[in-house]
Amino acid sequence: MHDRRSGTTTLTDAQRLDWLRLIRSDNVGPRTFRSLLNHFGDARSALERLPDLARRGGAARPGRICSEADARAEFEAARKIGVSLVASGEAGYPPRLAVLDDAPPLLAVRGAPEILMRPMIAIVGSRNASGAGLKFAGQLARDLGDAGFAIISGLARGIDQAAHRASLQSGTVAVLAGGHDRIYPPEHEDLLMALLETGGAISEMPLGHGPRAHDFPRRNRLISGAALGVVIVEAAHRSGSLITARMAAEQGREVFAVPGSPLDPRAAGTNDLIKQGATLITEAADVINAVEPIMGRPISLGAGEEDGEPVIFEPDTGDRARIVDLLGPSPVSLDDLIRMSGASPAVVRTVLLELELAGRLERHGGGLVSLI
Amino acid sequence: MHDRRSGTTTLTDAQRLDWLRLIRSDNVGPRTFRSLLNHFGDARSALERLPDLARRGGAARPGRICSEADARAEFEAARKIGVSLVASGEAGYPPRLAVLDDAPPLLAVRGAPEILMRPMIAIVGSRNASGAGLKFAGQLARDLGDAGFAIISGLARGIDQAAHRASLQSGTVAVLAGGHDRIYPPEHEDLLMALLETGGAISEMPLGHGPRAHDFPRRNRLISGAALGVVIVEAAHRSGSLITARMAAEQGREVFAVPGSPLDPRAAGTNDLIKQGATLITEAADVINAVEPIMGRPISLGAGEEDGEPVIFEPDTGDRARIVDLLGPSPVSLDDLIRMSGASPAVVRTVLLELELAGRLERHGGGLVSLI
Repeated sequence: MHDRRSGTTTLTDAQRLDWLRLIRSDNVGPRTFRSLLNHFGDARSALERLPDLARRGGAARPGRICSEADARAEFEAARKIGVSLVASGEAGYPPRLAVLDDAPPLLAVRGAPEILMRPMIAIVGSRNASGAGLKFAGQLARDLGDAGFAIISGLARGIDQAAHRASLQSGTVAVLAGGHDRIYPPEHEDLLMALLETGGAISEMPLGHGPRAHDFPRRNRLISGAALGVVIVEAAHRSGSLITARMAAEQGREVFAVPGSPLDPRAAGTNDLIKQGATLITEAADVINAVEPIMGRPISLGAGEEDGEPVIFEPDTGDRARIVDLLGPSPVSLDDLIRMSGASPAVVRTVLLELELAGRLERHGGGLVSLI
Repeated sequence: MHDRRSGTTTLTDAQRLDWLRLIRSDNVGPRTFRSLLNHFGDARSALERLPDLARRGGAARPGRICSEADARAEFEAARKIGVSLVASGEAGYPPRLAVLDDAPPLLAVRGAPEILMRPMIAIVGSRNASGAGLKFAGQLARDLGDAGFAIISGLARGIDQAAHRASLQSGTVAVLAGGHDRIYPPEHEDLLMALLETGGAISEMPLGHGPRAHDFPRRNRLISGAALGVVIVEAAHRSGSLITARMAAEQGREVFAVPGSPLDPRAAGTNDLIKQGATLITEAADVINAVEPIMGRPISLGAGEEDGEPVIFEPDTGDRARIVDLLGPSPVSLDDLIRMSGASPAVVRTVLLELELAGRLERHGGGLVSLI
C-alpha cells in the first residue's frame, strides 16, 4: 500500500511473496516488474497473466515462473542469516535508490537498517591501488564518515576495502554482486562481518547466486544510485570504476574524481573523468560543499517511465505486427515507436511487455529498446 | 608611424630615442606612457610637457627625465650585446603582448627575432620541482615544440629550466626580470646563451637593472601576456606560479594546470587552479586542442583604455580639486570618478595623468586607481 503523504509503502506478507515470485521469474527485470505492476495493478495479477503475455510475445517455450514454494524457501533462508527483503519505497530501502527506474523491487538487506536511510557517498577505485591511493581513500572515508555520511562501496580489494575499513565506526554499506551467502572476494568475509555491526550490506540477487562478470557493472548502478555522489579515487584507463562513474552521471549523481600525476597510470582514468566534467576533489570538504545543496532538496523521481494508473490494454494483431516490424537490433525509443506505429502509448507498452516476457526484447537506458 | 592595414608600426630613430627617454623617466610606466602618447600625440611633446604636468599634479620635487645622452648610451650598450629595442606594434614585438594595456612600449630583445612572432605556450612552475614534475615539463615542452609552438618561460630553476632545455631545438623564449646583462639565476647564463641560437630573450628593464623581488611578478605578466596560454606544471599553495596563472586569467589567456596527488604538496596549487576553473591537462594534445580555435582568430585589443585621437585638455582648478578629493588609498574606477566628479572623461584622465607623473597615483588592473 502506498501512502502518498509519508512517501513510504508497506507490503503485506502475501504481497511481498508475490513481489518476490514476480521478480525471480524468467525475463522479469526491475523495469519489466514496474511495467507489469503498472499494467495489472498488483504482482498477483501479473503472475497470473505472465504465461499468456509471453506466448503472445512469441516465446518459443514458456519462461519459468518462480513458485510460491521457492519464494517461501528464499524468505526462510534469508531470515536464517539475518537478511530481510525490503520493497522499493518501504522504510529501510535507500531513498535515492528507490527513485531509479531500474531500482530492484526487493532489496536483500543485512545489518543495521537505519544506515540505509543516511545520506551516502560512494567511494570506489582500483583493486590494484597504490599506497597513496589507499591512504587517501581511508582519509576521505574517515572524514566523510565523521561528517555524518554513510560510505557505500563494493567490498572489492584495494580502494573499496580501504574506504569500508576507514568507516567501520561511522557506518559503511557494502553492495554485493552476488547473493548474501556468496561473498566476493571470499577473503573479505571478515570485513563484511565487521561492517555489519554499524553498517549494512545489500544485494538484489537471490541467495546462492555466485557473482559472474556481468553482475559487477549491474551491481555498480546500485552503488551510485543509492549515493548522493560517487568519488573515484584511482582508476586506470578503461577500468571498472569508470563504468560506475558513467552510471552515476546517467543517474544524475555527482561524479567526483581524485587527480594524480599524468605520469601515474593509475590516475589516467580519474584525470580523464575531470577532463570530461567530473569535479576534482582533494579533500572531504570538496565533496561536502558539492552535495550539501542537493541534500536539502526533496528526492525527485528519475527520468524513467511515470507511475500512472494501471492500464490494461489488448493490442489487436495488426498493431502487434506493426510494432514488431519497427523493432530491430538497433535501440529505438518508445516515443519513436509510438509515432511510427500510429498506435497508442498503452498499446505500444503492452506489446513491448509481451516481447520482453517472451525473452525477445532488451531494454536499454533512456527508454530505448531493441529486439534480441 | 602606424600602418592600419598591415597592423605594424615602424619608428624612426628619433622617435625610438624619444620613446626610450619617456619610458625611462620617473613615474612613467607602460600605462602612463600610453596615456601621454594619447594626450600629446607623440613622445617628444610629452617629454616637453612632463615637468609642467608633474608640478600641477602636486609633485614635491620634479621627477628625473631621462636625458638624450642616457638614452643614446642605453642604445649603444644594448647594440654591443646584440639587444634591440623593439617598439610595441613593430614587427619583432610579440603580437599578443602588444595588445595588453600595460604592454612595455619598448622591449629589449635578444636572439632570433622570428621566434617572437611564433604562437607561444608558457610553461612555468615550482623552482623546487619533483623529478616527475621536471620530467613532465620536459616532455610537454618537447611535444609542444614539435607541434610548432615556441615555449616561453622565466629562466628560473626547476620547471622553467626543464621547459627551456627540452625546447632548445624547436625554439624557446626566456623573459627576464632584470636587464639583459643581469641574468638571474647567474648559473643559468649558459642556458640563456644556448637558447639564444634558435630562441630569444626579452626584458622591459634597462641594462644594469638587477632584478628585485617585486620585478618577478611584474615580469610574469609578460610571460603570460605573450602566450596563448600558460601551463602550470607544479605549484605549492601560494607559490609565485599562481600569480602568473592569475595574471593569465586577467589577460584572457588560457590557464592550464597539471594535476597531482592530493597527498603531494607540490600539486596543491595546480589542483586548486583546476578547482577554480583552469583546464586540467595531462599531455600536449590537451593544450593544442584548447588553443587551436584561438589561433585562428585575429588578435583583439585587451580591455584597456581605447586608443583614440590625442586629446589635450586643461582642467580648471575646481575640477582638479574635486577629482583629488574623490581619490584615496582604496582603488576606485575611472568610470566612478567621472560619474562622481561630474567632470568630462578627458578632464579626469588628464588629472590622473598629472597625479601619476607627480608620483602620487597608483594604477591597478581593470582601470582602477588609488592615491599613494
